[in-house]
Amino acid sequence: MSNSFGTLFRITTFGESHGGGLGVVIDGCPAGMAFPHQRVAAQLARRRPGQGKLTSARREPDAYEVVSGLEPETDRTLGTSLTLLFRNKDARSRSYNELQQAYRPSHADYTYDARYGLRAVSGGGRASARETVARVAAGALAEQLLWEQAGIEIVAWVDDVAGIAASVDPEAVTREAVDRAPVRCPDEKVVQAMTSAIEAARRDGDTVGGIVRCVARGVPAGWGAPVFGKLTAELAGALMSLPASRGFEIGEGYDSRHMRGSQHNDPFRLDANKNVYTTKNHSGGIQGGISNGATLRMSVAFKPVATIFKPQDTVTRDGREVTYTAKGRHDPCVLPRAVPMVEAMVSLVLCDHMLRAQTARQQWLRHYGDTPA
Amino acid sequence: MSNSFGTLFRITTFGESHGGGLGVVIDGCPAGMAFPHQRVAAQLARRRPGQGKLTSARREPDAYEVVSGLEPETDRTLGTSLTLLFRNKDARSRSYNELQQAYRPSHADYTYDARYGLRAVSGGGRASARETVARVAAGALAEQLLWEQAGIEIVAWVDDVAGIAASVDPEAVTREAVDRAPVRCPDEKVVQAMTSAIEAARRDGDTVGGIVRCVARGVPAGWGAPVFGKLTAELAGALMSLPASRGFEIGEGYDSRHMRGSQHNDPFRLDANKNVYTTKNHSGGIQGGISNGATLRMSVAFKPVATIFKPQDTVTRDGREVTYTAKGRHDPCVLPRAVPMVEAMVSLVLCDHMLRAQTARQQWLRHYGDTPA
Amino acid sequence: MSNSFGTLFRITTFGESHGGGLGVVIDGCPAGMAFPHQRVAAQLARRRPGQGKLTSARREPDAYEVVSGLEPETDRTLGTSLTLLFRNKDARSRSYNELQQAYRPSHADYTYDARYGLRAVSGGGRASARETVARVAAGALAEQLLWEQAGIEIVAWVDDVAGIAASVDPEAVTREAVDRAPVRCPDEKVVQAMTSAIEAARRDGDTVGGIVRCVARGVPAGWGAPVFGKLTAELAGALMSLPASRGFEIGEGYDSRHMRGSQHNDPFRLDANKNVYTTKNHSGGIQGGISNGATLRMSVAFKPVATIFKPQDTVTRDGREVTYTAKGRHDPCVLPRAVPMVEAMVSLVLCDHMLRAQTARQQWLRHYGDTPA
Amino acid sequence: MSNSFGTLFRITTFGESHGGGLGVVIDGCPAGMAFPHQRVAAQLARRRPGQGKLTSARREPDAYEVVSGLEPETDRTLGTSLTLLFRNKDARSRSYNELQQAYRPSHADYTYDARYGLRAVSGGGRASARETVARVAAGALAEQLLWEQAGIEIVAWVDDVAGIAASVDPEAVTREAVDRAPVRCPDEKVVQAMTSAIEAARRDGDTVGGIVRCVARGVPAGWGAPVFGKLTAELAGALMSLPASRGFEIGEGYDSRHMRGSQHNDPFRLDANKNVYTTKNHSGGIQGGISNGATLRMSVAFKPVATIFKPQDTVTRDGREVTYTAKGRHDPCVLPRAVPMVEAMVSLVLCDHMLRAQTARQQWLRHYGDTPA
Repeated sequence: MSNSFGTLFRITTFGESHGGGLGVVIDGCPAGMAFPHQRVAAQLARRRPGQGKLTSARREPDAYEVVSGLEPETDRTLGTSLTLLFRNKDARSRSYNELQQAYRPSHADYTYDARYGLRAVSGGGRASARETVARVAAGALAEQLLWEQAGIEIVAWVDDVAGIAASVDPEAVTREAVDRAPVRCPDEKVVQAMTSAIEAARRDGDTVGGIVRCVARGVPAGWGAPVFGKLTAELAGALMSLPASRGFEIGEGYDSRHMRGSQHNDPFRLDANKNVYTTKNHSGGIQGGISNGATLRMSVAFKPVATIFKPQDTVTRDGREVTYTAKGRHDPCVLPRAVPMVEAMVSLVLCDHMLRAQTARQQWLRHYGDTPA
Repeated sequence: MSNSFGTLFRITTFGESHGGGLGVVIDGCPAGMAFPHQRVAAQLARRRPGQGKLTSARREPDAYEVVSGLEPETDRTLGTSLTLLFRNKDARSRSYNELQQAYRPSHADYTYDARYGLRAVSGGGRASARETVARVAAGALAEQLLWEQAGIEIVAWVDDVAGIAASVDPEAVTREAVDRAPVRCPDEKVVQAMTSAIEAARRDGDTVGGIVRCVARGVPAGWGAPVFGKLTAELAGALMSLPASRGFEIGEGYDSRHMRGSQHNDPFRLDANKNVYTTKNHSGGIQGGISNGATLRMSVAFKPVATIFKPQDTVTRDGREVTYTAKGRHDPCVLPRAVPMVEAMVSLVLCDHMLRAQTARQQWLRHYGDTPA
Repeated sequence: MSNSFGTLFRITTFGESHGGGLGVVIDGCPAGMAFPHQRVAAQLARRRPGQGKLTSARREPDAYEVVSGLEPETDRTLGTSLTLLFRNKDARSRSYNELQQAYRPSHADYTYDARYGLRAVSGGGRASARETVARVAAGALAEQLLWEQAGIEIVAWVDDVAGIAASVDPEAVTREAVDRAPVRCPDEKVVQAMTSAIEAARRDGDTVGGIVRCVARGVPAGWGAPVFGKLTAELAGALMSLPASRGFEIGEGYDSRHMRGSQHNDPFRLDANKNVYTTKNHSGGIQGGISNGATLRMSVAFKPVATIFKPQDTVTRDGREVTYTAKGRHDPCVLPRAVPMVEAMVSLVLCDHMLRAQTARQQWLRHYGDTPA
Repeated sequence: MSNSFGTLFRITTFGESHGGGLGVVIDGCPAGMAFPHQRVAAQLARRRPGQGKLTSARREPDAYEVVSGLEPETDRTLGTSLTLLFRNKDARSRSYNELQQAYRPSHADYTYDARYGLRAVSGGGRASARETVARVAAGALAEQLLWEQAGIEIVAWVDDVAGIAASVDPEAVTREAVDRAPVRCPDEKVVQAMTSAIEAARRDGDTVGGIVRCVARGVPAGWGAPVFGKLTAELAGALMSLPASRGFEIGEGYDSRHMRGSQHNDPFRLDANKNVYTTKNHSGGIQGGISNGATLRMSVAFKPVATIFKPQDTVTRDGREVTYTAKGRHDPCVLPRAVPMVEAMVSLVLCDHMLRAQTARQQWLRHYGDTPA
């Protein structure tokens, strides 16, 4: 069950990085929708390795087949589950002795072995970051629904690389601005420094981490659920399931400890149409786990990825201490490619809650015949 | 379904702060276990309001009734679901005009109204922090199982108040050390400063936030699940469901951006018994979402709580802009009472994964007849 | 998790027959609804033991407390989870030697012992039929929603006792007609024979079984879900979770084997308003797991209950073969009391699918702007 | 979520009959297991159309690809989710006017349209019986685990066709005996009559129904769960999710109404090794929803399938009354092919409960250090 995510908009991902392929089964998409190939392709392109000097040289076209859920003649959704399949094209066969193979430090090799008694030695198995291709595709579909049905815009960007911090207006930032530089930071003043830090790490055979920040604009008040279904909890769980994620914040996050309640609280006012709004947004758009109509603001910290080209101490499966040095392709910094992954996970959570809120809304209307004041 | 948490060790909480009471249904506790009244009472006492000057004056004895799941004559668990019921003793009836009532800034009043079209005006409803009494009790049971069956110790402490940071050894800290000062910080050097910061906030009718840090020692390698069931994801979701939580970190968290991969990676070595261990623990005990045998290290940021005794701008349900000033009881700082809440949520996640790992283990043994190298 | 049922309208029952009490947590009830105390009380009264000579002499008033989910001043639902608690009033303490106690034949004593290593010797534990009190109360709430929001009527009746079969018009039968005789069979021609069969069994210290039939009138076309969420599957699972249930049928059920496809198929026609209907209803209102607008027709077979007052061969927990003779109170026939239980389970399934259909409907309207032809 | 089934052994099926293909994601299979290609192929062959005169002429080789979950070099399971993909080979493109197309009587055409506002006009969509290919493959895997780990044998057979009833010994029947005749009935005395009934229906362009009976031998006492997780409930839900199923029985089923409790109850005795057994098995191996060690006995009623070659009254999507006559391929009787489908669903339920019981068992052993008496 740990391969499924969501309640009404629900995905199940499958597959490994080196095998027949990866994919995703998507439940909860309405019938009659044109499949948003363009949006899916665009987000997959942003996630793809081999985009430039900053990312891995592995090249996978990320072409997908819609195995189920579309009426062939019209390319429209049937309302039943959609299945997308991505073939693995660039898998290289390796010969090795499983028992002798070294556990790569800070990868999932040892922990998968501890859990399963064996592991996918021909690749990262389910722990491979390639699994996120399935999430990004499903997230693009969710994003399309959020846009069509509620006018919601979701934008993520690289906000920090190796401690070099950007300054970005969460109300104004666009994907176009984000994509202007390969590092996917819309603050032109730090793009060069960030890029240099990544290239320096690459030259050293090393890696760097950082922060991706994300906003969702246009989420109406009233999405979310009490207790364990809080938006805060589900966004945190969604984002901390991404590879290399190490931290999550909503609103002011860790910085809120430097504020007093009187500074942090967001006063309510009425606009010209008597609609409620907050004059500040320290809450990051969520109060008591439910959206308040303000922009959702969150961040995710990513560690420097584990694959480095320096010798490291480790042990083998058959109990020998060895020195291990990685070979092949790698990303010196995962952040630029993590941007669409973050957008995807946020979209999946919000789309699920949009459907959950529709049920609640429909019921409310039956009983009250009108919307709340 | 947002009231339930966990897969094999699964809780469903119920109730509001002002009504018949609160409680929890607990599934997955083995049969024949002596109910750990002492441990439950101890953790409830640490969560309880009215422990001293630092916390709310509200007094609830937090006595619970075990409504189901125990054999009366022996007080032993039946293996079927346990139900604990806490009565609300200190609820005060209020007379008010619902439509005129002001939305308290940065509380869940407005968002619940937006979701449900009405709200529990006689208290915080399901958004009340009193709901955590049910989690703390269930968490104590989980903690007991983790201790009995795997020797696991879970210790949380206040690591930062209003920016005043402690320095604590995660391998050595004990609950006794944590409880030495009412602020629940085991670093004696900062206890006075933290306490003063809280008391200053109280004098000002204001509030402060901070950080609770938590460790789980003794978790064996191999707990956790791939993709969405990663320990990282489930711990994040669990902890970010706590009231006033604003951020989550595992291992180095946001600070990992200041490290390179070569610094952050944890080398593997073999001990005298040929068991695998890491010589550092920047990973916080989790790699690829699965435990690696090292101590689990995480933190949660809490904002300054929303109830302050200063006038604030807000609006009423019937569309008027007003000034609101809170009355009654409140906590100037939620951190000391959050310590057992954090321990409870971590215990619930780990106990669930202990059971999930037992299933996997059992199957592994059938096929291999032995444990992994 | 086996204590929960449903997806959007979801209940979790708790408690044993001999202990603090039983209850149910109900999720998915809309906010602002007046709690239907009258309907709940009416169905509980029909389930209650001690209604007459035909049922058990045990007397439980079945008074419940609404522990959570209601605004006290208005008695209206908050939209968050409702909790109902039933106290056990008539529990009798027993002294016994657990190890020596005999396994009652065809009860759950031995199987619970095999699963848990112990069992609730002071009563039936979770296997007690008293657990259904929680389902009947929750079902009455579901029934109220189905009536208010969709005009659906659910009526069950005793259709067979000990092989004595009734003949009842599924389109016309009412609860009033059902309740005219204590045996809850609306066919006056067989009431006397059924009653005599039950009384004869009682005189002999024995028991009889039979069939409860149920209809749901007014279910619109389009409720249900593909594959494992078929109405057929969920109704079967719901009804076969009732104590003593042994069989389930939809539509013609087992008799459909005596028909050819050309007889069994239900032709479609259009009424004066161009609405689709079927000229027959052998399908029992469900095609492909989804409702077709016709009356839902189903039945449940109940075995003769296991508690009899004759000596029976059995064994004890400590491994001795003994003769066991039941003492105390019992029902010679569970059928009359099973009628509200069947109605409750059908209501829970349909209410859940009403909410699931509302979500689908809402989405459909967004895309098509109109209802299907 | 209606595409998923099971808790610890959990499948998610996907795909339609006419499109890219169908498949299944399987969670809960242990690591290190050799993939049972032979058993899977054998069960798929028994489900396959085109086996002879009794079944449909459609020919699909039912070759599958294991897309994920196997280590390529060893063909052993990784412990993470397995994905099987079946391509649709025999799909025929059709040109039609969707709005004019007639709703086939007693198919899912109209109900899917009512639910989704459109339907998979190029085939049965998710309602197609071809979806069961995914279940049969997953069921064969479950069956393999049940056999390897617990020595359990599952055998189903055609017990009734068009009212012609077989007489079969549930303790002795084998798959070999079942497969001796194409009609899959092991009672030689009725094979000819059953076959003639099916062929007569075919000649008439009509169809017949019947009963499949199934046993599971070797299930130990103690599998199953209380309340909604009863084996009875989960088996009923599983089997009533099969296309054309109309009824379910456990043990004596509907016939139990002809017995008194004193006849129906199963006495307990001890064998030479002091193990508990029942001297009869009217309970069908389940008491209180949990297995008692006796053979599980159940049946499923199947209606005559809806595709007939006679003219039928129906309506079109655009609101005209028409006469519809089916063309193409069809099964005059689904029963022989339903045999492996029934075995698959029973295997899926039992395998899930085997894993759930392992968790409970493991815990029990921790506390008691021994098995129950």
